[in-house]
Amino acid sequence: MKFLSYRIGGAPRIGVLYGGRIADLTDAAGCHDLGAALRRLGSERLCQLAAQSEPGPRLDEIEAFRPVVADPERIVCVGLNYDEHRVEANRATTAHPTVFLRLPSSQTGHGEPIVCPAEAPNGLDFEGEIAIVISRAGRRISEDQAWSHVFGYSAYNDASAREWQAHSTQWTAGKNFPATGAFGPVLATADEFDPDTPIPLVTRLNGKVMQHADTSMMLFSIPTLIAYISTFTELVPGDVIVSGTPGGVGFKRNPPVLMQDGDLVEVEVGGVGTLSNVVRREIA
Amino acid sequence: MKFLSYRIGGAPRIGVLYGGRIADLTDAAGCHDLGAALRRLGSERLCQLAAQSEPGPRLDEIEAFRPVVADPERIVCVGLNYDEHRVEANRATTAHPTVFLRLPSSQTGHGEPIVCPAEAPNGLDFEGEIAIVISRAGRRISEDQAWSHVFGYSAYNDASAREWQAHSTQWTAGKNFPATGAFGPVLATADEFDPDTPIPLVTRLNGKVMQHADTSMMLFSIPTLIAYISTFTELVPGDVIVSGTPGGVGFKRNPPVLMQDGDLVEVEVGGVGTLSNVVRREIA
Repeated sequence: MKFLSYRIGGAPRIGVLYGGRIADLTDAAGCHDLGAALRRLGSERLCQLAAQSEPGPRLDEIEAFRPVVADPERIVCVGLNYDEHRVEANRATTAHPTVFLRLPSSQTGHGEPIVCPAEAPNGLDFEGEIAIVISRAGRRISEDQAWSHVFGYSAYNDASAREWQAHSTQWTAGKNFPATGAFGPVLATADEFDPDTPIPLVTRLNGKVMQHADTSMMLFSIPTLIAYISTFTELVPGDVIVSGTPGGVGFKRNPPVLMQDGDLVEVEVGGVGTLSNVVRREIA
Repeated sequence: MKFLSYRIGGAPRIGVLYGGRIADLTDAAGCHDLGAALRRLGSERLCQLAAQSEPGPRLDEIEAFRPVVADPERIVCVGLNYDEHRVEANRATTAHPTVFLRLPSSQTGHGEPIVCPAEAPNGLDFEGEIAIVISRAGRRISEDQAWSHVFGYSAYNDASAREWQAHSTQWTAGKNFPATGAFGPVLATADEFDPDTPIPLVTRLNGKVMQHADTSMMLFSIPTLIAYISTFTELVPGDVIVSGTPGGVGFKRNPPVLMQDGDLVEVEVGGVGTLSNVVRREIA
């Protein structure tokens, strides 16, 4: 199943996609956030509701996509999880994942602008990533059990203000400007994936491939990430793990390539689709 | 005024303290989170309600203190904001604050245990800090305007699992175990403070002074922190800035001093009071 968050008639909605039509789940779920719906109903009941729902508006009738999970309790981002990127970023190997947090206010939806703030005069960097959304709560989830906590997958662009990321050892400031974390277009549920088949990930800037990898190249696998993160914090339904970007980011290229006003950036995740955003420089 | 969050009859409540009695504001505010009350009503209306409310239960009648703001949208922690701590931590000076995020699930209240997880066999480190709670929303708040966005102050113990903090360059994992961020006992509103008089901060472990400083010793002042943080994220009512710990933390002592099961740790902030917690090792 493909879940999505969107806006129609000014109101935030959640729904499930059948072909080109959306079956709205907002009223049935009693909320307009996919994470809240998962916490309230559980993933099984939500999928039952989705299976029983009637297709409504066409995809081209919606006003806008919202971030797939607009207001998760946790957005745990993983740094340096592909070796090519670790090497280009000139970082040592670590025995444990590198994790930092994004705030929900930093997110934006498919088709919405990624906003380059005035404070990033050189532009924003792209980081195409695979997002994992949690189905059910767990603390100290074992790697064996980890797959059973995955609701599904989506695409994420962890766009970064590199100057602000480099202000100190901690990356928070460069990763939390509003409308820099693009998330979508849809969530594809885990039953549509075979855990043994790598999920491909491609980032394109104005049509040119900038990053290309798949989940088999992760330094820390999805089950390892879930086990590690759930050791220090309980993961709850709707939580998002942004699983790291491969090699090829812009600021380590020679010359550097940062995203400018009007640039089209796409993150394609196999089985999910393509997350597309145009970069817009903020009007001062 | 002194605001607090607590539990009585099993239910979470917010209130204001008059002498030893609590005037409950939960019903009047329509919510049991101080941040939600600030977002819903604004700080002026909340203070009006507080001024009109009738004292109820005595402080010794409550079941437990909750974190002063139990579910803020942002907990922005500042690292290395006192020079003595920067030097003991062997970190370079930076032109900008070092900021990282805590999740609300990592918080605990005054008088509740700070929980040392099984994964921190050597114990937790203490970090006494001054917490600043935001009254009204703002993005790109100027230093001149910053004081007008401060609702009040509290004490914070940013207890840290040092092994996990050192897993990678990013400190997230060591700063987000459940019940490690102690926050309280109360919030003292900003009108009770003179911005030109430094606020003293003392941390005691089993009665012995371990850290002693005041806000005049901060490398980045409170207005500078508010201006910096609000540049990359909009601050909203109830947001918490945990403003950094002075020199004297445990893991840099010779020999190291980490908190063990049964230890009493206190963080005293002038004008606020003393946040006290006993450390409890988690039962495996």
